[in-house]
Amino acid sequence: MQFQKLLSSDSARFLIGNSKNRHFSHVLDTINPHRTALVMIEFQNEFAADGGKLYPAVKSVMAKNNMLANAAKTVKVAREKGCKIMHAPIVFSPDFKEISKTPYGILANVKGGECFIRGTWAADFEKSMKPDNGDIIVLGKSGLCGFESTNLQFLLGQNQIETVVLGGFLTNCCVESTMRAAYEKGFKVITLTDCTAATSEAEQVCIFVRLICSLFLNILLD
Amino acid sequence: MQFQKLLSSDSARFLIGNSKNRHFSHVLDTINPHRTALVMIEFQNEFAADGGKLYPAVKSVMAKNNMLANAAKTVKVAREKGCKIMHAPIVFSPDFKEISKTPYGILANVKGGECFIRGTWAADFEKSMKPDNGDIIVLGKSGLCGFESTNLQFLLGQNQIETVVLGGFLTNCCVESTMRAAYEKGFKVITLTDCTAATSEAEQVCIFVRLICSLFLNILLD
Amino acid sequence: MQFQKLLSSDSARFLIGNSKNRHFSHVLDTINPHRTALVMIEFQNEFAADGGKLYPAVKSVMAKNNMLANAAKTVKVAREKGCKIMHAPIVFSPDFKEISKTPYGILANVKGGECFIRGTWAADFEKSMKPDNGDIIVLGKSGLCGFESTNLQFLLGQNQIETVVLGGFLTNCCVESTMRAAYEKGFKVITLTDCTAATSEAEQVCIFVRLICSLFLNILLD
Amino acid sequence: MQFQKLLSSDSARFLIGNSKNRHFSHVLDTINPHRTALVMIEFQNEFAADGGKLYPAVKSVMAKNNMLANAAKTVKVAREKGCKIMHAPIVFSPDFKEISKTPYGILANVKGGECFIRGTWAADFEKSMKPDNGDIIVLGKSGLCGFESTNLQFLLGQNQIETVVLGGFLTNCCVESTMRAAYEKGFKVITLTDCTAATSEAEQVCIFVRLICSLFLNILLD
Repeated sequence: MQFQKLLSSDSARFLIGNSKNRHFSHVLDTINPHRTALVMIEFQNEFAADGGKLYPAVKSVMAKNNMLANAAKTVKVAREKGCKIMHAPIVFSPDFKEISKTPYGILANVKGGECFIRGTWAADFEKSMKPDNGDIIVLGKSGLCGFESTNLQFLLGQNQIETVVLGGFLTNCCVESTMRAAYEKGFKVITLTDCTAATSEAEQVCIFVRLICSLFLNILLD
Repeated sequence: MQFQKLLSSDSARFLIGNSKNRHFSHVLDTINPHRTALVMIEFQNEFAADGGKLYPAVKSVMAKNNMLANAAKTVKVAREKGCKIMHAPIVFSPDFKEISKTPYGILANVKGGECFIRGTWAADFEKSMKPDNGDIIVLGKSGLCGFESTNLQFLLGQNQIETVVLGGFLTNCCVESTMRAAYEKGFKVITLTDCTAATSEAEQVCIFVRLICSLFLNILLD
Repeated sequence: MQFQKLLSSDSARFLIGNSKNRHFSHVLDTINPHRTALVMIEFQNEFAADGGKLYPAVKSVMAKNNMLANAAKTVKVAREKGCKIMHAPIVFSPDFKEISKTPYGILANVKGGECFIRGTWAADFEKSMKPDNGDIIVLGKSGLCGFESTNLQFLLGQNQIETVVLGGFLTNCCVESTMRAAYEKGFKVITLTDCTAATSEAEQVCIFVRLICSLFLNILLD
Repeated sequence: MQFQKLLSSDSARFLIGNSKNRHFSHVLDTINPHRTALVMIEFQNEFAADGGKLYPAVKSVMAKNNMLANAAKTVKVAREKGCKIMHAPIVFSPDFKEISKTPYGILANVKGGECFIRGTWAADFEKSMKPDNGDIIVLGKSGLCGFESTNLQFLLGQNQIETVVLGGFLTNCCVESTMRAAYEKGFKVITLTDCTAATSEAEQVCIFVRLICSLFLNILLD
């Protein structure tokens, strides 16, 4: 099992929490790197780089997790193993006409804060997470879930993907929505919690891991 | 605003937390009961009645919230106001052939525990939450999200629904997945936290309210 | 290749038109009956039995194609080969509250004609196409596409299906919409034209085969 | 009704075939330009300009219909009326890694023919159909249906769109798949047949209009 090596490698401190679970063994038994996609969500300067508008909100968790370095290493290893690497950025027009005139919730914040404007430095990939030529860029992401407003399902179907491995921003927002959707679409889902970041340690660790974990059993803890 | 009366009525202790938020006023300004659907998720004996296999897991939160009585009253009031009442049960065949042979996560628990079998008492609606003749039953629910495996989007589209009001089981599982999806499909979403239940107070209150709330701002607290 | 035997068997006069196409060989090379679902659409009395309201509209094409007998035989053979058999009926409430108050197109006709009412003889499966205990019933179908308002995608994902084989009513309406959606979701799709029926020979043969065929190359002709 | 004026204006020879149909009056009665989106599909050089690889296949129907001029005028008028203008291009990487290694049907042709490569002249909008600053570009389109692999549903939801008006390439492929999906998602759908083109007059007129029309009643003929 090549992916088991990946899981136990030093390249990323994969957090493993449910590996002893009777169901999780089924997952590991059937993983095939050529049918596995690593989907990295919103590793853009707005979130991941000093100067990004949302960086101050996540930098504490990022630092504690060493998440950016973990993510970059994971991409490198997974690429070598033959996994498909997919990058799912979010972008908007300068006037945010993609979003409702009366938005609420996080989309209101994105619009109000003028984040992720197409063609700007902020919307570009963070320098350590630039896509390689062989990688696939997921297009269309305008909302939370990596599937809802994108061609991700098309890409996974065309590439015969069975296992989806997730990292990115925010742990309990876009990453979690993508994890939930991928889970019930029938994919095996692995969320690499040390390759994700949220706006507080409470969101990142206590809650996400302890509670979501008990529902989905698809998170790897250390 | 008829719905504002509903919100302030005694019939259900609507928990209102973000009513002062500048975005939430947009929601309330535009609510029209005839374009509002109350979607009640999995009020079936398996969860909601003594004797159900999952009742022991949720009864503590149910009792503390008085959630079943709140939900029944909310349905009654919303029905009188002209909202569409939709019930979204989950059902499986006795051999659970709808679910993977190697399931994991909560679907593995549902299958392993032989829950929600079609035609049994456990899969039937709890007695205080039986659908009325004018109500609509959402069909197909096999997974977590109320949209992913059902005709809910079809029903909302055909009935020109703009606002989705949610209650049911489990707060942080099916209700939350439905809330997340409805939010980014462009619906106004109101999650009635005193009409939902989870398997622990931690999941029900501290986490859901404090954290999800900050992302979606569509939960009403008291 | 067991499915190739199925294709060449006498049990159903599989119409094969593009078998010489260079791309179609890829399909046949990779078919595995255990990862194949036969999805039979709306084989209900309303369409398929004398006395059904829509039977007069399709009986001519049904007779010419011998489609009901072909479909029943195909189900039997595919079941023996280990394919998953899925039945996708359409049902509505007696007051058709699932459909818009101002419908148009075929949904207006279904509502106006009071077709497929839940619990009636008309909505029941035609007697030669009753589901077997091991078959799966797709739930939720309220519109045209077999995916849009149902749990079909969930069922295919959970059952690790790669190839979808289609039959049913109407060739150029629900069957075609399902074929189009399945195609771009990444499934291999085989539409058994002698197991489908439309309301005229023109729709059934000339148009569907000659034109759609050139786009999708996934129809088998004789 | 401003949109009725649009319909009867000279700016585009709207083909009206079902205007006398009892259901169609419902559509016209409720059209509001601010809740209407004109979705123009694949008006890219590959299809629409001399030098595009697919231009030879469609130029005959384009010329007979005067479709490019009609489409450009329709966009102009609809923009002035306050409709949202959405452009839905299709793009692929130079190595077509978005598409299966063993494709079939029209996606095999697109890949085999190396069409619509991102960043090339061929993938750019035809010069008379360049998006205006206020227009919205639908992202992600990799398959046939304008919804399946894009953020179109997100955009329509956020912009509170009720009516979708369609034009583009190919009449019986992407346009028709989008029409079918939009119809059952509950939108009012108007397909402007003189703003679409197919690869033969047979596909464009006889078949599409006569047969599909009888199913959806949402096509305007002259």
